[in-house]
Amino acid sequence: MKLTILGCFSAFPKKNSFTSSQLLEINGKSFLIDCGEGAQIQLRKFGIKLNSIENIFISHLHGDHFFGLPGLISTLRLIGRTKPLHIYGPLGIKKAITLLLKLGDSWTNYDLCFHELSSKESILLIENEKFKIETIPLNHRIYTNGFLFTEIINEQKLIAENVIQYEIDKTQYRGIKLGNDGVSLNGDLIKNSLLTEPKKPHKRYAYCSDTCFFPEIIPIIRNSTVLYHESTFLDSHYELAKKTKHSTAKEAAQIAKQANVEMLILGHFSCRYNNIEEFKSEAKLVFNNVELSKDGKIFNF
Amino acid sequence: MKLTILGCFSAFPKKNSFTSSQLLEINGKSFLIDCGEGAQIQLRKFGIKLNSIENIFISHLHGDHFFGLPGLISTLRLIGRTKPLHIYGPLGIKKAITLLLKLGDSWTNYDLCFHELSSKESILLIENEKFKIETIPLNHRIYTNGFLFTEIINEQKLIAENVIQYEIDKTQYRGIKLGNDGVSLNGDLIKNSLLTEPKKPHKRYAYCSDTCFFPEIIPIIRNSTVLYHESTFLDSHYELAKKTKHSTAKEAAQIAKQANVEMLILGHFSCRYNNIEEFKSEAKLVFNNVELSKDGKIFNF
Repeated sequence: MKLTILGCFSAFPKKNSFTSSQLLEINGKSFLIDCGEGAQIQLRKFGIKLNSIENIFISHLHGDHFFGLPGLISTLRLIGRTKPLHIYGPLGIKKAITLLLKLGDSWTNYDLCFHELSSKESILLIENEKFKIETIPLNHRIYTNGFLFTEIINEQKLIAENVIQYEIDKTQYRGIKLGNDGVSLNGDLIKNSLLTEPKKPHKRYAYCSDTCFFPEIIPIIRNSTVLYHESTFLDSHYELAKKTKHSTAKEAAQIAKQANVEMLILGHFSCRYNNIEEFKSEAKLVFNNVELSKDGKIFNF
Repeated sequence: MKLTILGCFSAFPKKNSFTSSQLLEINGKSFLIDCGEGAQIQLRKFGIKLNSIENIFISHLHGDHFFGLPGLISTLRLIGRTKPLHIYGPLGIKKAITLLLKLGDSWTNYDLCFHELSSKESILLIENEKFKIETIPLNHRIYTNGFLFTEIINEQKLIAENVIQYEIDKTQYRGIKLGNDGVSLNGDLIKNSLLTEPKKPHKRYAYCSDTCFFPEIIPIIRNSTVLYHESTFLDSHYELAKKTKHSTAKEAAQIAKQANVEMLILGHFSCRYNNIEEFKSEAKLVFNNVELSKDGKIFNF
């Protein structure tokens, strides 16, 4: 998985800090997660081909998470997109986008497929042999979902020396990688576990923004490889976080710890703070493996 | 008048070239003309206080002219605006903006006053003793208006040496500036024309984007101080301009010449051209005083 942060501040975009938007790449497929104003500018800035985007996931309908979407949709038309674009977002997103297109008499020349969300339970959005995408119901001022991306790793890695030792014919390799047992040249059955490395767990990326401290998400995101969790405020603004249904860095770290994730990425910082490093310091008191979002930063995992 | 170009390219924003948006300042009042995606970023970049904006004028509802508006409206709320904001734009703009605010449950804490336009004739939008603003009906693929801004210069400049020579008391200065005759110390009536410089014509800024070559606008914009006229294409793409109802640099210059304006500013350039200077060269074959728009460029007139 490759995650590129396109914007990671809350509220409104400024000269050098854009609002929420990320590009996640899994097995060569590109997913845009949230689309704050100017996301298309950031995509260009960081050398990402706009047309590579397969699906767009909008967490909620606050402007700093989706005001870049109408422009991106229009631009995709102008640059000649023909393949469908799938948009997952809260109920109402279709009406908003189609109204804007209608007013401009600017219909797309590609299929715009809306998948409107209204469930309060986690639901499956996409599943195939390579990846699975589910919602993570969050708790914010308006209906909001996070998204859980699972990279499905079907193949096991062969242990080269054992395969040779047990005289396994090459024609069996593919089957063994997928879990079959092997058969040696003299006909002996060789257990799969002797021929392959232990199966690696699926990689999972959990995107959680915006939300208050909401431990109900823990069963969904448990053991994720990477958790992006909003931390709009520091603990010094705990009351403000509570009032606005946002989280503090400390709370994000508590979720990361309780969910036993491998790494926590913080983001959605309020513009009131001059020193973003304080978010890291605060979170690290609770959970050790913490990284900060930054426009243009890339995480490979 | 002070005009700051915030964005001047057509279609979609890129890293260093934003779509249509300008800030016009007249006598300390600030007017935003069009509001492409990221206009609020540009306002900040060029040191303009967002809250200084009194009125916003949207020419038409293509995304490159108004997709920055929802974000700007939201940001004004977040930075605590209390004074009303007046928005002039085509019929439908109110429905679009209010739907977006409603979806985010993000109502403004200041009055948002929409003035929806649908007239095909030039109409008066605002008139007071300092300025006057009228529409310039244009001819584009969808309903579009340009805007004509007139700075009303009521006061004449006193000729200091004459005022002293005719022994005019200081208490009369204000009245003379506004057109009264003077009375000398010995009671003689002194004609206003002897005490003041000839009245300066009102300054006028005409904004015309987007439109095809449309000479019907000439009576409205005649003798303007500055004309901004779109030139999406060069004459080499004349057919494309005609098809998409845009203008070429040559056509913009023809309008400028026929309307006898003092200066022509070109903008709304298609992203297909690497060398924007060619627009200037083409226009100058028809009309001499031509300037090119550039993000951040300021024109004082």
